[in-house]
Amino acid sequence: MEKLKKQQVYKDPLYGYIHVDDLVIKDLINSAPFQRLRRIRHLSGVQMVFHGAEHSRFSHSLGVYEIANRFMAVPDLAEGFDTRQRLLFLVSALLHDIGHGAYSHAFEDVFGMKHEVMGAALITGNKDIRTLLDRIDQGFAEDVASILLKEGRFALIEQLISSQLDVDRLDYLERDAYFTGAAYGRIDLDRLIRVLHVRDGQVVFKHTGIHAIENYLIARYHMYWQVYYHPVAHAYEVNLEKICLRAKDLINQAFDFGKIDIDPLKRMMEEPRDIDNFIQLDDYYVNGLLVGFAKANDRILRLLAGDFLNRRIWGHMSDTKDNKAAIEAIKKGYDKEEQAYFTACRTVENSTYQNEETYFGDKIYIMLDNGSLSSLRDQSKIMESLTHAGTKSDTRFFYRKP
Amino acid sequence: MEKLKKQQVYKDPLYGYIHVDDLVIKDLINSAPFQRLRRIRHLSGVQMVFHGAEHSRFSHSLGVYEIANRFMAVPDLAEGFDTRQRLLFLVSALLHDIGHGAYSHAFEDVFGMKHEVMGAALITGNKDIRTLLDRIDQGFAEDVASILLKEGRFALIEQLISSQLDVDRLDYLERDAYFTGAAYGRIDLDRLIRVLHVRDGQVVFKHTGIHAIENYLIARYHMYWQVYYHPVAHAYEVNLEKICLRAKDLINQAFDFGKIDIDPLKRMMEEPRDIDNFIQLDDYYVNGLLVGFAKANDRILRLLAGDFLNRRIWGHMSDTKDNKAAIEAIKKGYDKEEQAYFTACRTVENSTYQNEETYFGDKIYIMLDNGSLSSLRDQSKIMESLTHAGTKSDTRFFYRKP
Amino acid sequence: MEKLKKQQVYKDPLYGYIHVDDLVIKDLINSAPFQRLRRIRHLSGVQMVFHGAEHSRFSHSLGVYEIANRFMAVPDLAEGFDTRQRLLFLVSALLHDIGHGAYSHAFEDVFGMKHEVMGAALITGNKDIRTLLDRIDQGFAEDVASILLKEGRFALIEQLISSQLDVDRLDYLERDAYFTGAAYGRIDLDRLIRVLHVRDGQVVFKHTGIHAIENYLIARYHMYWQVYYHPVAHAYEVNLEKICLRAKDLINQAFDFGKIDIDPLKRMMEEPRDIDNFIQLDDYYVNGLLVGFAKANDRILRLLAGDFLNRRIWGHMSDTKDNKAAIEAIKKGYDKEEQAYFTACRTVENSTYQNEETYFGDKIYIMLDNGSLSSLRDQSKIMESLTHAGTKSDTRFFYRKP
Amino acid sequence: MEKLKKQQVYKDPLYGYIHVDDLVIKDLINSAPFQRLRRIRHLSGVQMVFHGAEHSRFSHSLGVYEIANRFMAVPDLAEGFDTRQRLLFLVSALLHDIGHGAYSHAFEDVFGMKHEVMGAALITGNKDIRTLLDRIDQGFAEDVASILLKEGRFALIEQLISSQLDVDRLDYLERDAYFTGAAYGRIDLDRLIRVLHVRDGQVVFKHTGIHAIENYLIARYHMYWQVYYHPVAHAYEVNLEKICLRAKDLINQAFDFGKIDIDPLKRMMEEPRDIDNFIQLDDYYVNGLLVGFAKANDRILRLLAGDFLNRRIWGHMSDTKDNKAAIEAIKKGYDKEEQAYFTACRTVENSTYQNEETYFGDKIYIMLDNGSLSSLRDQSKIMESLTHAGTKSDTRFFYRKP
Repeated sequence: MEKLKKQQVYKDPLYGYIHVDDLVIKDLINSAPFQRLRRIRHLSGVQMVFHGAEHSRFSHSLGVYEIANRFMAVPDLAEGFDTRQRLLFLVSALLHDIGHGAYSHAFEDVFGMKHEVMGAALITGNKDIRTLLDRIDQGFAEDVASILLKEGRFALIEQLISSQLDVDRLDYLERDAYFTGAAYGRIDLDRLIRVLHVRDGQVVFKHTGIHAIENYLIARYHMYWQVYYHPVAHAYEVNLEKICLRAKDLINQAFDFGKIDIDPLKRMMEEPRDIDNFIQLDDYYVNGLLVGFAKANDRILRLLAGDFLNRRIWGHMSDTKDNKAAIEAIKKGYDKEEQAYFTACRTVENSTYQNEETYFGDKIYIMLDNGSLSSLRDQSKIMESLTHAGTKSDTRFFYRKP
Repeated sequence: MEKLKKQQVYKDPLYGYIHVDDLVIKDLINSAPFQRLRRIRHLSGVQMVFHGAEHSRFSHSLGVYEIANRFMAVPDLAEGFDTRQRLLFLVSALLHDIGHGAYSHAFEDVFGMKHEVMGAALITGNKDIRTLLDRIDQGFAEDVASILLKEGRFALIEQLISSQLDVDRLDYLERDAYFTGAAYGRIDLDRLIRVLHVRDGQVVFKHTGIHAIENYLIARYHMYWQVYYHPVAHAYEVNLEKICLRAKDLINQAFDFGKIDIDPLKRMMEEPRDIDNFIQLDDYYVNGLLVGFAKANDRILRLLAGDFLNRRIWGHMSDTKDNKAAIEAIKKGYDKEEQAYFTACRTVENSTYQNEETYFGDKIYIMLDNGSLSSLRDQSKIMESLTHAGTKSDTRFFYRKP
Repeated sequence: MEKLKKQQVYKDPLYGYIHVDDLVIKDLINSAPFQRLRRIRHLSGVQMVFHGAEHSRFSHSLGVYEIANRFMAVPDLAEGFDTRQRLLFLVSALLHDIGHGAYSHAFEDVFGMKHEVMGAALITGNKDIRTLLDRIDQGFAEDVASILLKEGRFALIEQLISSQLDVDRLDYLERDAYFTGAAYGRIDLDRLIRVLHVRDGQVVFKHTGIHAIENYLIARYHMYWQVYYHPVAHAYEVNLEKICLRAKDLINQAFDFGKIDIDPLKRMMEEPRDIDNFIQLDDYYVNGLLVGFAKANDRILRLLAGDFLNRRIWGHMSDTKDNKAAIEAIKKGYDKEEQAYFTACRTVENSTYQNEETYFGDKIYIMLDNGSLSSLRDQSKIMESLTHAGTKSDTRFFYRKP
Repeated sequence: MEKLKKQQVYKDPLYGYIHVDDLVIKDLINSAPFQRLRRIRHLSGVQMVFHGAEHSRFSHSLGVYEIANRFMAVPDLAEGFDTRQRLLFLVSALLHDIGHGAYSHAFEDVFGMKHEVMGAALITGNKDIRTLLDRIDQGFAEDVASILLKEGRFALIEQLISSQLDVDRLDYLERDAYFTGAAYGRIDLDRLIRVLHVRDGQVVFKHTGIHAIENYLIARYHMYWQVYYHPVAHAYEVNLEKICLRAKDLINQAFDFGKIDIDPLKRMMEEPRDIDNFIQLDDYYVNGLLVGFAKANDRILRLLAGDFLNRRIWGHMSDTKDNKAAIEAIKKGYDKEEQAYFTACRTVENSTYQNEETYFGDKIYIMLDNGSLSSLRDQSKIMESLTHAGTKSDTRFFYRKP
């Protein structure tokens, strides 16, 4: 658990600097699997609408690490964590997204992968990372993997990494707001850190920070509906998903892709746990594929990839009664095979609703002046009413414009 | 010269919104050659040092257009330009970087191309863009090309697009500062626009804006030395250049690249003016190449590409007397062929000095209260002394670490 | 309605510049009654908690004017207003706070004044302002006064100046956030202006701006509870109010104030409509009084003024059952006369609740895609649930610490 | 040297929070002499040009303290200072401006006072402050006074408080830029702190921070010429000075000021070391005087005060050959007595030049890679040339417009 002789810093547009004091953190940042995150954009479809949002998972991962590092100024953490626990927390924060590949959403949906699982596999199985973590101690890699898989062995660290109000979200909401230019992602990070405490192994917040938490949750709500669920961004996601689907189907049919370097993708389908293969699947590779697909011998694949590369944005409409006829007409314009690739119906309700329910305070604990705990929902009129508000749902029909 | 029925806006993190009123501007933005700029990063080596700097030439080009659009609020331009001249200015601003490929610096050096020439060829020869510009009038595309080539036919517009203080630099200094997080690129754009006038076809600035200009020039100076000429960023540029060089040499030797899709690069070497081929050479393609090169059968190419992809930063030292022995020792560690690809000596002096000389006020005209013109150098004590200061030069030896 | 030969600008930390094109606006800004606003702080008690909040009603009034000026870019206003209406709007925006004196809240409560009424009297009765407005036309001053009094003769302008979402609030929320450093007052002004329309003389917002409105209303909610209703700020307000009350009672008892220049205050009590006297009552005068009061012969007045000047913050507790005994004990510590000046019970519920009810969308009209109107409450799940949430109320007991 | 049980924070618009850990710092902030700084604006004339600049010496003093507190993260200071030295540094930073009265420049010039001397007297002689500092130890107050007087007994702390690059300037340049809205005061504080070291009791900066220092010095240069020496701001300063001069002359002539509370001013002239009297002379008192003066029986005093209160800005022109005749004509328009109060000639050269000379690197030490020291001037081409550039001088004639 060696310290650097001199603290190393990386200039960051959000935090001024990312501060690194531990040799292992520096070495992990320089490792090939982590550097590869530079080649994976953080937001896929969103960047087609918000042109500034071209940042990578690399920047985001450094940011999450930095916030974790700042959390260590919280007395309950500084005093509660021993040296190893501190490092477990920092390493887990840094590596929380290491299992992502290019265009994760579309890939995970179509190929049935999970970035947490891939991340855990990579942390324990990749030689570069494994070697670095073994220098700390033999069980370290497994413990980091366990945290990413949320197995409950390190419940407090898991909460800090992934919960209603965690280091991951604190970075991405601010970062995505900064790069998109959205006006709504500003969070009072200093305040949140100042009111954070630990009681019985549980993260809690002093009631004096309720406004900062309300503000964070509403910023999150706005970022979701304004940015992440933007219909045009969503259309791009659907377009990508269809490209993946067609490629998968063609591979299964043993289609001849010619000079296109399809092997890594094939291998991923056959052996998803082949980590060395998986880490080749960055934006560079997949975008190279897309350029190849746009010239492929398969018409459907060619059209789908061309749409994506040249901003031929798919149409979208809400799947309401009024639109039933229009939707049917569009579908009929395509034959059966085309329909499977050129049209889609997606509801943002499910995931959103689940998020909203919890968003609005269900699992955020508030510590009152007398030391007793309460829930945010009971302490915040705004959150209580939002929790009762129920589902905001939107079912959208997407289609390729002929 | 049709106007949009409703002004269209694009959210931008620097300017709030990019505002588009003309149909042709909207259509140009949506055209495939312009969308392709999303796939070409604005800064190549720099992003390896400043991790936030992952923005593309697409964002930058929109920004340059927006500044040109704001310049149209200057009375001398609003009244001096007719409808066609206004559109010439806006279209030239939007398309000024359309001739860039991936990693321009390295490519231009190794393959002997010029993005202004490629841009002019693309504007007159690409079907998508040509068709759009022909809708305005038959000579429009040629006139835009002429402005990019600085032929002098539209001297005022050329100055506004490219001179000591132009719409291009005004965007990139602020934008690169925003994305890198550098503290020094802030420019008082509002003030500069308020003091801009035109006298005898020449851009001049009222003397009340001298502080804003001084500040702009010093911001530029700092951005160059802090960001663009950062030694580690420079090391990456040299690495890239060597990859290009090796690839070129191997192509000339008819090396068998296996499954690597080398054809577009070959074609570019044989027929650089083949525009349809050229526009395939975006980051996606070149980065796909790099991934391929890192597994290539050629050892040198494989090592060079691996260095770039996995942050094995090349060493660097100033080429001074004190370092002569060390440099010789490093060179001797390599055989003759390796030396050509694994070591390099680069001076940032030349280009810098030329820039500096002009930077510091040589060609910026100041209008005094009585209406007469003077030079910035005569009106600004800071700039006068900086002009006399002479060359800041740095000759750097770069080398692959074995 | 003369234009300036050259647009005049005033540097502003929020908007870059305040832009003035009309001679009358410039002259009004330079008039003595308007310059006097420099000597009246925008926030009274709040600055004792948020030390940065030392800005005046002068800055705020310029800001409100600038936002009104930017509103004139809305097509429905630019086309719907004739030259006189435009000027009515701008002048009313600029002068909307002209009737404020020092520490308005405390003064208005104790002395029974209303700044709208004083403003209207000043605009029609002050020689400087009257003369400037008469240059436009003879009824202009009366029309501006009518707008401030919300008589309904210029319903659209009244809405723009004072309603749920008006130029006044748009400036003060952002400005107070900027100067206090509160993280929550950021508003997407550009977006709000882009979605503003006028239908049948009513301000409406396109549904695409709902998120911006939600964000504005929640920013407003947070600014109220975090900043304006901050208990310590509130304690200072109560302190001030008691000073006013004691001064009033002493004047009524013909107390001898010695060298303290009490005449303007006396005159205000006898003849509140004496405008020339009223405009002397700025912070300079009142603060001079406070310094005098802190040395006065009356013990109660001396203690009250000393508390204010030297940050002897009054105690406060919620007026709940649990605190009944403590409150009674404190009261008993004072004799009857002291109780009237050294203790107070104040509910922030009433005003807040009324605000909240309307805040949350009751009177904000949303224009749907098909052109029909709806209410924000029906279109925004957040606002609907917040409207149902009912009263957030807080009854606070304040007391001088012996 | 008691610590607070819980760190106390004050919300600050520049730094997020001011952090206080020591009981004595908290008590000093709450003391009457320090709270009085709320009633003394930081910039006097400047606020008449930059309307946002209404902040007080209170905010600035908290800011200087906070920067000193952040400096304590510098290893050479954290390790080099013992507990008492740390507190000496923090207390001196907090109290460095405690000796200022209202409108210091004008007052100091006319009445021959020095705020450092008054500060030292106040720290050792004021009961409130003395008592607090005596709690630390008996010599503490004298040592803080010694630092303000720069007697050389605590050379390192004196440098940190007041030198070319000190905690005072670091705060006021950023703060004044923030409140004026000037684009040029941004400083890379984090970087400056990271490169600060101590060698042989001398503050030095690592050469890697040269760009940050250059940027700071140029920001300072621009703030001086753009903001502090703005001719209209200067005109207000001259106006104020003349008011002081007339008041002084009238007092010396035993003029009857009627109800105006002139006693504290008289007392200050008779016994400048009467601290209890001096601390009454805040903006509240002096502005109360100005309001009184504007109605005084003396015509000259009345006109001067009226000019100041109602923005009747004095005229100004450069005192050049071309303007000689115009200046003489203006002077002749006044009789001899009037001339003394209604006209003035002021050179900003002297003070500026002295500043510039040192500004540009004379006394800033740079530590090279090999540990040896050099001067900024030798290491920075920009600073070297600026040092050689010589004087920028401006002699200005100011006059009351009849």
